[in-house]
Amino acid sequence: MERDGIEKKLGEKELRKSVDEVSNLALDIGGSLIKMVYFSRNSDIFVDCSSNGNLNNSILSGRLHFEKFETRKIDDWIKFLSTKQLRHCGSQSNQSPASDKNIIKATGGGAFKFADLLKEKLGIILDKEDEMDCLVTGANFLLKAVHHEAFTYMNDQKEYVQIDQKDLYPYLLVNIGSGVSMIKVDSDSKFERVSGTSVGGGTFLGLGKLLTKCRSFDDLLELSHRGNNREIDMLVGDIYGGMDYSKIGLASTAIASSFGKAISKEQELEDYRPEDIARSLLRMISNNIGQIAYLNALRFGLKRIFFGGFFIRGHAYTMDTISVAVNFWSKGEAKAMFLRHEGFLGALGAFMSYEKNDPVDEASHQLMKQFPKGPYCIEDRFQSSDSTNASDNGCIECRLQVTK
Amino acid sequence: MERDGIEKKLGEKELRKSVDEVSNLALDIGGSLIKMVYFSRNSDIFVDCSSNGNLNNSILSGRLHFEKFETRKIDDWIKFLSTKQLRHCGSQSNQSPASDKNIIKATGGGAFKFADLLKEKLGIILDKEDEMDCLVTGANFLLKAVHHEAFTYMNDQKEYVQIDQKDLYPYLLVNIGSGVSMIKVDSDSKFERVSGTSVGGGTFLGLGKLLTKCRSFDDLLELSHRGNNREIDMLVGDIYGGMDYSKIGLASTAIASSFGKAISKEQELEDYRPEDIARSLLRMISNNIGQIAYLNALRFGLKRIFFGGFFIRGHAYTMDTISVAVNFWSKGEAKAMFLRHEGFLGALGAFMSYEKNDPVDEASHQLMKQFPKGPYCIEDRFQSSDSTNASDNGCIECRLQVTK
Repeated sequence: MERDGIEKKLGEKELRKSVDEVSNLALDIGGSLIKMVYFSRNSDIFVDCSSNGNLNNSILSGRLHFEKFETRKIDDWIKFLSTKQLRHCGSQSNQSPASDKNIIKATGGGAFKFADLLKEKLGIILDKEDEMDCLVTGANFLLKAVHHEAFTYMNDQKEYVQIDQKDLYPYLLVNIGSGVSMIKVDSDSKFERVSGTSVGGGTFLGLGKLLTKCRSFDDLLELSHRGNNREIDMLVGDIYGGMDYSKIGLASTAIASSFGKAISKEQELEDYRPEDIARSLLRMISNNIGQIAYLNALRFGLKRIFFGGFFIRGHAYTMDTISVAVNFWSKGEAKAMFLRHEGFLGALGAFMSYEKNDPVDEASHQLMKQFPKGPYCIEDRFQSSDSTNASDNGCIECRLQVTK
Repeated sequence: MERDGIEKKLGEKELRKSVDEVSNLALDIGGSLIKMVYFSRNSDIFVDCSSNGNLNNSILSGRLHFEKFETRKIDDWIKFLSTKQLRHCGSQSNQSPASDKNIIKATGGGAFKFADLLKEKLGIILDKEDEMDCLVTGANFLLKAVHHEAFTYMNDQKEYVQIDQKDLYPYLLVNIGSGVSMIKVDSDSKFERVSGTSVGGGTFLGLGKLLTKCRSFDDLLELSHRGNNREIDMLVGDIYGGMDYSKIGLASTAIASSFGKAISKEQELEDYRPEDIARSLLRMISNNIGQIAYLNALRFGLKRIFFGGFFIRGHAYTMDTISVAVNFWSKGEAKAMFLRHEGFLGALGAFMSYEKNDPVDEASHQLMKQFPKGPYCIEDRFQSSDSTNASDNGCIECRLQVTK
């Protein structure tokens, strides 16, 4: 009830204000995208529950923001950031040293690559956090604290999965960015990167751009939606004269060779529809990731595979293909699951890492302390950009409540 | 000594004659290539060793021929075949029923797809053999009977592997044709297709044709030889500002994202060198196959992986990439091995299957009986086509000696 009341009080003006005040900014700078997570506190709706004598029970209310930029447009992003008031969430009275404001948690390769640039242009010092650490911390947080975070997707059916916090581990985390990392997660603090593949989101966009002239990841996804991969993939039936190879469980419609029909000398690139090419590419890459993920899950006896990273983007066909691959190869034994905040695992992990160095009253600290036990959670408030276009700074905003 | 003598007697005329007499022809008709194996007996050098009273000790001397055609040029191949005298090897006096000559062992999907066409055009009836059965039979035969068949290839070093026939099983057979099959082989007769991938030779040629305008598989391979994949692949160092990600064992030169640099909006397909594209494509596919093969070998505790199929074509960089992938992912535990007659496993298996139906005095029968024990083996005599070009009917000829 109280949260409903708070929600109603939040008008557009407050939202804009919160976006201008960027607290506890954390970055994940990858090969293709810069992912940002930050907190904005709404001081006018700060609810103090310290009347029970326990200061730690005060409620701090605000929002976690998730935004992304294209890495190749880092100069635009620097301009954008220079318009923001960077501050620590916990330093309500600005008592922390001024220099603290300029230390920003960052992960991903770009935290190394762009460290000098950010120092020079914005006076920001990047405090680098390990990429795998951050991915795992972010995933663990989402899976434990966020209602309706994980879901399965197959045959156009989305089903939310209730995660029992005591039964979360072990699982396989597959983060599909430009490349793909596969991490076996055994506990809150124990994990290992066990595999990966270079055939990932960068391959989809890179090959897609060369083959279709498509300009963006989302345009390419949109294109694939209208395509038919059978125009360009060589199916089992194409080799077997329309028949199944039933003895080994391959239907005539199974793909024998991705892009195999394109070996035809009669047809050039221009003779194929870009839609069909995009579809075949998406299917090849999604299927391959699903297969390698399953083989790694099998290797360690993991029944659950969570897929994250900005490759998926809630795209139905991508999730369906990955799910079918995991289901096919595991003969139904393993399950592919997806995360609503799939692209922000690393940035969220970097956000959480503020707590490690400054255990006073950081929002991240409170989150870390509370999420496994309390009723406090992030709930999606709205998704401001349905198109989730990589170039339009699509932003997912959430309401956040934590004890202080 | 005797074999040397026989070899010297073989002039070019005899060789040509043997090619015109096609005995025990067996086919493997795949999505891209028709592979043929047949036997030609040289009656003028038939050596009868029956003087010891054992008819089975007679020596039948001849050659096994390996040839390939492109499947899409099947009409040309039919014309070629119509010029040959098809006969059974064993029917020295033409006593076998005439119809026998017209029954040909065949495997691969094309054995189904083109059955009617071959009956109509040549009066040939294809006796279909299971594709996996044939691949395994062919591989087992080569590994047991042929001297210097298997070898490792890494860092430009080719090393022949001495296979202990008693210690051959189990192994993983990876056949890379248009698509890829992975088969766990447990004994002469026990095997299972455990995995596969649609990212195979058809993908290399299909995508390669669309991206480079290259006309043939071998042109594309040749092109890749001069290319540099780093121009188009996104390396770990590209993301990490030239640094390694050493904590998880990724060097700065490791590929983070295949074709990941092509996401750049500044460059179009025309701006990339076809050489670099071909190289990146070859590396992506070879590496992916190596990784999936290793994961399957690991799953079943198989230390040895033999790679066959017409994708490899003895190409140094392909073998090197596959070897490095297997070595990297297995941390040196598993070994990639290659087969000199890599492309003809299925066709050879179909050739062997003549024995199953007609156990009289077929060459295939004698081979099957003798290869595990006797001193009889196939030795490469010469390889008539060094370019192994898919379009030029490259032919590998072998001298064959078996007891009769």
